[in-house]
Amino acid sequence: MYLAKIYVTYKPSILDPQGEVIKAALNRMDYSGIEQVSQGKYFEIKLKATDVDAATSEVESFTDALLINQNTETYRFDLSLVDEDEVLS
Amino acid sequence: MYLAKIYVTYKPSILDPQGEVIKAALNRMDYSGIEQVSQGKYFEIKLKATDVDAATSEVESFTDALLINQNTETYRFDLSLVDEDEVLS
Repeated sequence: MYLAKIYVTYKPSILDPQGEVIKAALNRMDYSGIEQVSQGKYFEIKLKATDVDAATSEVESFTDALLINQNTETYRFDLSLVDEDEVLS
Repeated sequence: MYLAKIYVTYKPSILDPQGEVIKAALNRMDYSGIEQVSQGKYFEIKLKATDVDAATSEVESFTDALLINQNTETYRFDLSLVDEDEVLS
């Protein structure tokens, strides 16, 4: 059983309105040192696969197909081996 | 300048309807090995701080105050030193 942790962020050229709103709110709350805020999505997915290569290609396939908008978003992920009954955080 | 990468997830006892919907969709798309899906939020925040202790306490303070719902969500983060002009992904 593999655990994929997938981090989805906007591509650098894409505006991030949520990030701008959060930055403005933090500045209003007197967190003055905040320079840049970027909000993305984070997925933890447990999947069965025969080996790490199979898990990698499956994660790449379904992330492109379902989890991200390829026009505006990009992602990276890491894989780890986990026990069957380990509970996600 | 520090870069905080903050991973927000639901607490284990909290239902994750988005994760369930994504899991069902992946199963319909013939990704049969998917056991569990959890969707969270991911923030990359660049902040100025005098040292790593100051950065840590600032990140903890504003994450509790603004970024998460403490009733339903939990988070972890890591900090790294970055250049002033490094662009976030």
